[in-house]
Amino acid sequence: MIIDVHGHYTTAPPALEAWRTRQIAGAKDPSERPRASELVISDDDIRETIEKNQLKFMKERGTDLTIFSPRASFMAHHIGDFEVSSTWAAIQNELCHRVCQLFPDHFVPAAMLPQSPGVDPKTCIPELVTSVEQYGAVAINLNPDPSGGHWTAPPLTDRHWYPIYETMVEYDIPAMIHVSTSCNPAFHTTGAHYINADTTAFMQLIQGDLFRDFPTLRFVIPHGGGAAPYHWGRYRGLAQALKKPRLAEHLLNNVFFDTCVYHQPGVDLLTEVVPVENVLFASEMIGAVREIDPDTGHHYDDTRRYVEKSRLSEPQKRLVFEGNARRVYPRLDATLKKRGK
Amino acid sequence: MIIDVHGHYTTAPPALEAWRTRQIAGAKDPSERPRASELVISDDDIRETIEKNQLKFMKERGTDLTIFSPRASFMAHHIGDFEVSSTWAAIQNELCHRVCQLFPDHFVPAAMLPQSPGVDPKTCIPELVTSVEQYGAVAINLNPDPSGGHWTAPPLTDRHWYPIYETMVEYDIPAMIHVSTSCNPAFHTTGAHYINADTTAFMQLIQGDLFRDFPTLRFVIPHGGGAAPYHWGRYRGLAQALKKPRLAEHLLNNVFFDTCVYHQPGVDLLTEVVPVENVLFASEMIGAVREIDPDTGHHYDDTRRYVEKSRLSEPQKRLVFEGNARRVYPRLDATLKKRGK
Repeated sequence: MIIDVHGHYTTAPPALEAWRTRQIAGAKDPSERPRASELVISDDDIRETIEKNQLKFMKERGTDLTIFSPRASFMAHHIGDFEVSSTWAAIQNELCHRVCQLFPDHFVPAAMLPQSPGVDPKTCIPELVTSVEQYGAVAINLNPDPSGGHWTAPPLTDRHWYPIYETMVEYDIPAMIHVSTSCNPAFHTTGAHYINADTTAFMQLIQGDLFRDFPTLRFVIPHGGGAAPYHWGRYRGLAQALKKPRLAEHLLNNVFFDTCVYHQPGVDLLTEVVPVENVLFASEMIGAVREIDPDTGHHYDDTRRYVEKSRLSEPQKRLVFEGNARRVYPRLDATLKKRGK
Repeated sequence: MIIDVHGHYTTAPPALEAWRTRQIAGAKDPSERPRASELVISDDDIRETIEKNQLKFMKERGTDLTIFSPRASFMAHHIGDFEVSSTWAAIQNELCHRVCQLFPDHFVPAAMLPQSPGVDPKTCIPELVTSVEQYGAVAINLNPDPSGGHWTAPPLTDRHWYPIYETMVEYDIPAMIHVSTSCNPAFHTTGAHYINADTTAFMQLIQGDLFRDFPTLRFVIPHGGGAAPYHWGRYRGLAQALKKPRLAEHLLNNVFFDTCVYHQPGVDLLTEVVPVENVLFASEMIGAVREIDPDTGHHYDDTRRYVEKSRLSEPQKRLVFEGNARRVYPRLDATLKKRGK
């Protein structure tokens, strides 16, 4: 079985964006905001967007199951206040839930949170609870920078975030650390902000001792861990300079990297440098890079090819494709086992 | 000959930092600021700091010449106003000039600029001119984020920066794109801010068409280009999505990466992915990572070892160690030729 731990509903029906556009227009005046009930998307609308896109590619590429969350760039937590984020998160999580109900063999949900700059993260707990208990979410996406490129939130090791971590531990769900759209012109969203956030989060975790407080807390750092594996020597050395334990002991029981690295040498480096137990297959397909690589004739984001061609042994590939995901996402494993898988 | 294009005076006599501490204390009140003449550092002070540190390592590691600039984290352009930055840059550039005069066979200067957040970059030109004409600087360090982690400056492709580029082109000197200390608690200076800045700069250059306006302008992106080579497929794909030419044509006549990547697999990836003409040897020794790697018994920043062990052929290594630096830094080449080297 091949599990892709990083998929977003990037192909949602246009009605979703149209509703959001109205919500943004009314961000400053609550009376102008559309009601959630004004968004109408039929099951057939959903089926069409999935069958012609994600599911088509999954079949072509031979992947079986995707952990599916709302489009990352659409989260845009920097827009409006908590109420705006809250309504938006509820709509998006419910929509992903519907996708997963319509295609239960292929999609399992992860939730976005109704984060908002400067707002206490504990306000996110009700949506988190709904997502896990009613929608069967097996993970959350946690945005370390709800300001969208101004980085006004405290580091992930700060007690500011602890209410979310406590709930994650209670439900035994991991978080993917994933920012959203950059509203800072210095940072291109998918080319700079996403990758920088991955690197930043990893370094914040090196600096702190978060997993002493939460030994079972688990984070997945997407996009192959940003710059971290490429600069693994730098990070090992910085941990040393900060008098931290070795990375294996300090972070690697709790921190995992996905394989959203869009060329062979990158995946080769990732699988050479990071212990295989810490690498989870993912593609973020139909995401940041949708093009076909003229040098290979394949989509850049067809990451299964790179993992297959890496130096990993077959048992190691089984871990990357399936075993690690079942271990890091126990609710996914339980869901699959219930289905006899 | 082995040329290290990335060295900073990280070991300057303590009097420098003491003076700066007084300057910072007086940042808000000009009458409290120390005069430049109050900083006294003798030639013997300089000799001692260099002979016991940089020069000692250069001899041990077999590198010949370092392009030497003020300590990057000390630039701290976010502190004070233009006058503070201006006095500080003048002091630091003169100090590096003195190092290079005392050890002319081993050090050639690069200048920091008196940047200040929100101040027109053309105010930096007089210091740039002094550094090139009087001190023999062969390059500058350009900070894309003088705010120190708040990223309030326009992207490097904006006309905001053109006065500096025009002067660079006039003198035919490259700029290393190098941020300074982060005052944003989200970003560890050397573990996040430096690497993020490299990645951010590279993506800004992909988004723009800067080298259409300045076909001979040259940038060196340090720390192995941040995350760029590891995510080379992502950047190739994003350039495609943005309808830009291929990276080779769009950027690689003008953008170069150094080898400050502190482990073998990182340098292997860099030299595999990036054309050899675009890779310049550098170590940033006695810099961000001063530790010894317990796995190898060698300093992390002894990057010559990694380049030597890479798959590059001997002629390719000559390019990385010397040829590319002479081409990208023509004033260095001229200086060396004058000396019969």
